[in-house]
Amino acid sequence: MIVSPQSMEFSEPLALRSGASIRGYTLAYETYGTLNAARTNTVLICHALNASHHVAGSYEGQPGSEGWWHTMIGPGKPVDTDRFFVIGVNNLGSCFGSTGPMHVNPDTGKVYGADFPVVTVEDWVDAQARLLDALGIQALAAVMGGSLGGMQALSWTLQYPQRVRNAVVVASAPNLTAENIAFNEVARRAIVTDPDFHGGHFYEHGVIPKRGLRIARMIGHITYLSDDVMNEKFGRQLREGIDLKYSTQDIEFQIESYLRYQGDKFSEYFDANTYLLITRALDYFDPALRHEGNLARALAPATADFLLVSFTTDWRFSPRRSRELVKALLDNRRSVSYAEIDAPHGHDAFLLEDARYLGVVRSYFERVGKEIGQ
Amino acid sequence: MIVSPQSMEFSEPLALRSGASIRGYTLAYETYGTLNAARTNTVLICHALNASHHVAGSYEGQPGSEGWWHTMIGPGKPVDTDRFFVIGVNNLGSCFGSTGPMHVNPDTGKVYGADFPVVTVEDWVDAQARLLDALGIQALAAVMGGSLGGMQALSWTLQYPQRVRNAVVVASAPNLTAENIAFNEVARRAIVTDPDFHGGHFYEHGVIPKRGLRIARMIGHITYLSDDVMNEKFGRQLREGIDLKYSTQDIEFQIESYLRYQGDKFSEYFDANTYLLITRALDYFDPALRHEGNLARALAPATADFLLVSFTTDWRFSPRRSRELVKALLDNRRSVSYAEIDAPHGHDAFLLEDARYLGVVRSYFERVGKEIGQ
Repeated sequence: MIVSPQSMEFSEPLALRSGASIRGYTLAYETYGTLNAARTNTVLICHALNASHHVAGSYEGQPGSEGWWHTMIGPGKPVDTDRFFVIGVNNLGSCFGSTGPMHVNPDTGKVYGADFPVVTVEDWVDAQARLLDALGIQALAAVMGGSLGGMQALSWTLQYPQRVRNAVVVASAPNLTAENIAFNEVARRAIVTDPDFHGGHFYEHGVIPKRGLRIARMIGHITYLSDDVMNEKFGRQLREGIDLKYSTQDIEFQIESYLRYQGDKFSEYFDANTYLLITRALDYFDPALRHEGNLARALAPATADFLLVSFTTDWRFSPRRSRELVKALLDNRRSVSYAEIDAPHGHDAFLLEDARYLGVVRSYFERVGKEIGQ
Repeated sequence: MIVSPQSMEFSEPLALRSGASIRGYTLAYETYGTLNAARTNTVLICHALNASHHVAGSYEGQPGSEGWWHTMIGPGKPVDTDRFFVIGVNNLGSCFGSTGPMHVNPDTGKVYGADFPVVTVEDWVDAQARLLDALGIQALAAVMGGSLGGMQALSWTLQYPQRVRNAVVVASAPNLTAENIAFNEVARRAIVTDPDFHGGHFYEHGVIPKRGLRIARMIGHITYLSDDVMNEKFGRQLREGIDLKYSTQDIEFQIESYLRYQGDKFSEYFDANTYLLITRALDYFDPALRHEGNLARALAPATADFLLVSFTTDWRFSPRRSRELVKALLDNRRSVSYAEIDAPHGHDAFLLEDARYLGVVRSYFERVGKEIGQ
């Protein structure tokens, strides 16, 4: 499936949860499949930390350019683009096409940098709803996402219940635990205290806080994998045979080499201010906050049907957190399907090919298709 | 119990596993209790990452100066200094009194800095054995340590089997997992890439790589605690009521405040080169490496009796790793007691007061005392 990115400009200011507003912004998006005549077959895909609107298919003449959820979405795939009209949208504040910190603030004529307003999951959902308005789509057959994307899918059912028939929430949580916030905070401190960060206005200095980005990515990478899969993939394998170098700075173990490579690669393409914004959106998401921590009450507005999926070895968004969501939705008499997949890959499992996982989503979307006669 | 530190100088060079050697070094140590006439009641305590020879008691006129294992060791405590002669020793390369990177290399007349040789668990044990020689102590009633200290206790039973009657190995492992090496590596990269590190010769520049040390400590701190205990202590508590600041850099959650405080404090007193050395010693420890990964074969030289203790929520040195040790020791027909303590505090539990944990150690040391007629 050959795809191409599109973009939509919005001139009407978007009021944000922080009290700030943003105007003159652009959202990058992609669509796959065909909108049916009744306009009822749309599936919106929300992305997680370092992903984008490029969810499925490939770009013309660019081998290896598959979208980040191409195992899940495409012709004949679990979310079948022969039946559904699928939209991937890049969130505000991202560095992959939608308006973000490296763009010019129309109010000042200067690059936003650290002055880009803090955006929340709820703000992203508002922006996505406007994109649907602009595309002439009233209701979603389903909204779907993993991790931070799952938080957006959940928030859709609370902010726009009448516009969502189904929500598919994968490897997600009703909020972050203290440990998750802690990992985000360390990553942010690594970026912010990098001398090349320059208070978030590094663009003007012609530098990039790569040291901080590398550290942030290395931490992230460790926590997205399970201990088991790291042991299986790398274990204590030395890079060069059994002879140790006895050095604190040279690479000795394969895992070190892998992590440094991941950090380097990330620091080449990801924006530091975006990293701060997106991890903060994760921290802030907490629908129960204004309900004295009562999640069941917080989820009362939802009218959608739900599919939740979690993975046994995911320790950042553990099955326990998905079960909290299941419980709170059942307390509200919602229809909930829940699959706990026994997968070794930790949080990353939601992006990987696993027959049982893909099978569950495929079955669910067959039902969704039947509901809308598609 | 009022105690005071002592130190011992060694002029004979110590050959290290790296092939380097170190001469003219000093070991800081403390002793508690009295050596019996038969010289059979010595208990050697080995320390972990950021601890020292100050294991028990307090310093005169310094309230709050209790040793790091004062709940465990002292008069009437599980390791009873009324019965045992207890020695705490600071490892080579540390920054708390023994010769380390901030001292002058007698071969060059310059501060070692990053040129301090890489030291291993085995090297530390050799240095500790020399200290015993100098104190006229041939054999240990017990050697004991937690975490990295447990690795030293284990290594004692392999390097000097005839000198160890009992080994108490708490919250330890036969080697680090890939995930543990990965966390160490991120911490080291944070330090090494701090511009104030100056290739490890920052002393000459009058600066300290505090940014890196802070990040290293924050990562460490997260991984020493359990997810549960972090949720219980901090959860998602905001620092200032329910009103969010919507900022990526200001402190919003209590956990952020706590971590930053821990990082700041650590960066004031811990040496960056020492941090690199000690985490590397952790990475390298792997008695099975020269036995094709066969742990049972690696432990064959041991003749001591063993007590192993692990904690259910410790995810850096999980019970599974202690069970591997138990299995390999039993394969060698060793006498092994093993306690898996159901404690919520993660890896940190080995330093905390827990009646069942302390009770197990107390019982074990009663047996040790009886063996030597003490």
